[in-house]
Amino acid sequence: MIQYKITQTDKWNFVEFELAKNIEPADLKKMIMPDIKKFYNKGVIISGRGPIWLYGVLIHHFHPTRFIATFEPRLNAGVVIETHETEFHIGDLIDL
Amino acid sequence: MIQYKITQTDKWNFVEFELAKNIEPADLKKMIMPDIKKFYNKGVIISGRGPIWLYGVLIHHFHPTRFIATFEPRLNAGVVIETHETEFHIGDLIDL
Repeated sequence: MIQYKITQTDKWNFVEFELAKNIEPADLKKMIMPDIKKFYNKGVIISGRGPIWLYGVLIHHFHPTRFIATFEPRLNAGVVIETHETEFHIGDLIDL
Repeated sequence: MIQYKITQTDKWNFVEFELAKNIEPADLKKMIMPDIKKFYNKGVIISGRGPIWLYGVLIHHFHPTRFIATFEPRLNAGVVIETHETEFHIGDLIDL
């Protein structure tokens, strides 16, 4: 139903998801999530075409990581939305 | 820049935001957030037309509340995305 492609850099993991079919809210109950242990010591940039509630679940999943950004195609950049990292602040752009 | 209309029920607060202009990521740095103290003992359903990263910041803001859902206009329902409440589970629909 959902596939992840993960690209690593020194400071973040770029997590692109792709949906094989239209997702429904009930699918969230059995959705496979990326293994969080790989992500603790870096930030995460989430990218993909999907509903806001899918992003919501992924954002919650990655909450323990160093920071979270969502990819904004219009700007070709990640936008930091939460952070435990002094180097990255809410609203910062991360050029990709 | 952003206005909130908050409707309370017994179990949740329905938070509708409206943007006065197109929002840019840098606007997040000075954005006024709803007062979280009003929300602790209930869930929150977030609704409004805006970018995913704006939802991301609001979801992070409401993290301490009982549960968070985002409104899905296609289903005319909230979709639960995170929860500290046994009554509401991830993927549940809340009819409005």
